[in-house]
Amino acid sequence: MGKKRFKLLIEYDGRHFHGWQRQENAFTVQEAIETAISRFTALRSPLFVAGRTDTGVHAKGQVAHIDLPETVTEKVILNAANAHLRDIPGVKILSVDEVSPDFHARFSATFREYTYLILNRPAPLTFQKGLVWQVPKKLNIEDMKEAASYLIGFHDFSSFRAAGCQSSSPLRSIESFDIEERDCPLMGNTLILFRVRAKSFLYHQVRNMVGSLKLVGEKKWTALDFKQVFQACDRTKAGPTAPPDGLYLQLIGY
Amino acid sequence: MGKKRFKLLIEYDGRHFHGWQRQENAFTVQEAIETAISRFTALRSPLFVAGRTDTGVHAKGQVAHIDLPETVTEKVILNAANAHLRDIPGVKILSVDEVSPDFHARFSATFREYTYLILNRPAPLTFQKGLVWQVPKKLNIEDMKEAASYLIGFHDFSSFRAAGCQSSSPLRSIESFDIEERDCPLMGNTLILFRVRAKSFLYHQVRNMVGSLKLVGEKKWTALDFKQVFQACDRTKAGPTAPPDGLYLQLIGY
Repeated sequence: MGKKRFKLLIEYDGRHFHGWQRQENAFTVQEAIETAISRFTALRSPLFVAGRTDTGVHAKGQVAHIDLPETVTEKVILNAANAHLRDIPGVKILSVDEVSPDFHARFSATFREYTYLILNRPAPLTFQKGLVWQVPKKLNIEDMKEAASYLIGFHDFSSFRAAGCQSSSPLRSIESFDIEERDCPLMGNTLILFRVRAKSFLYHQVRNMVGSLKLVGEKKWTALDFKQVFQACDRTKAGPTAPPDGLYLQLIGY
Repeated sequence: MGKKRFKLLIEYDGRHFHGWQRQENAFTVQEAIETAISRFTALRSPLFVAGRTDTGVHAKGQVAHIDLPETVTEKVILNAANAHLRDIPGVKILSVDEVSPDFHARFSATFREYTYLILNRPAPLTFQKGLVWQVPKKLNIEDMKEAASYLIGFHDFSSFRAAGCQSSSPLRSIESFDIEERDCPLMGNTLILFRVRAKSFLYHQVRNMVGSLKLVGEKKWTALDFKQVFQACDRTKAGPTAPPDGLYLQLIGY
């Protein structure tokens, strides 16, 4: 029987999963979706994902591809997968599109965009808990913007690369890095939105960059201090890793 | 020992509580905060609230007042109450201000503002679950705005008054009712924000108004149909009650 390739757009709440990738002893997004699809296809078909995410990290625009019998349609996959995900909190398929057999969720991607949310207020969180990083001290946006500007372009990102990173190279190219204060109906007017785009990222790179930018916002570092930390190419010189709570895999470009 | 009156600004996630008001067999916001305050004052002091909310309804700007011994300060109350609320998910005191002894959280209020959030998309919810009302069919904002314009001013709101309402009169005066589509960093660009302000509301009035406006947005009713339903002063003619998920007590004016 012939197969067709389908591209899935996926949203999930990272609080409910031990990250994307299948593991022996923990429940992951990949397992949830593969199981849901196996329920109506009676096949164990693997998902190939654009960007693996860690425990607690959210996705608004995760993409994965899967090969399924040509008898199933986009609409059947969307409805049946979501029906079988009904009792699993925090993950839904947003859309399903048939793609050409040479499409690959990971290798065809031209860019990945992450957003990071900081709620800048003294009060601890209530309904926003797990969805943003609460930072009590008022952050200076202009200073953080200046610091972030040094990250744009092709550089050695060793200062923001986690120890467990499996990439052969610390070189990456940041296409854009925007920081703005947003008035959110849900969170209020002290929400700070970081939006960063690159072809690919190192392990924990976004959370490490945000963790150091926060020190600039708090005026513990100047933008120039940040630049020197970045240019030192030494992880031990940089700031702590920002928590997963505020991180969203926003968009995969093809 | 003399007493001072304090005004508390309170935020909570309605998913964690059976509403505001103390009950025999269910955990409420009032009980959570009164217990937290009694822990460091060794007194059982009652809270008087501006607007009681139901199970599942959130508050970003709830106000309550409480009389406490004059030895405690604003800062002590804020820090000690939040410390004692630490293990109770979903409720925090945002600020504490000493007020004059004739201030009353409920009776001194000059207006109450509620917001209601609809996420207008076909896909079921993930991290927004419980925080918005998901409506699959694309809603027409202009039609809903026209319908909402009929609500502004002094009217008989019997069509939007729940059966259990204890008010002696169905007459209320809506000061403003705004509806807009918002691009939210967290929810995306199909978030619809309803914002309504009045001196006071009937029981379930906001949720009942939104429930009928949604029918206009879906084009099941015209704005004129809505006006006729409103003028009928008959709850059975109106639409269903919107779920508590999307409702936020936003602001109390004094």
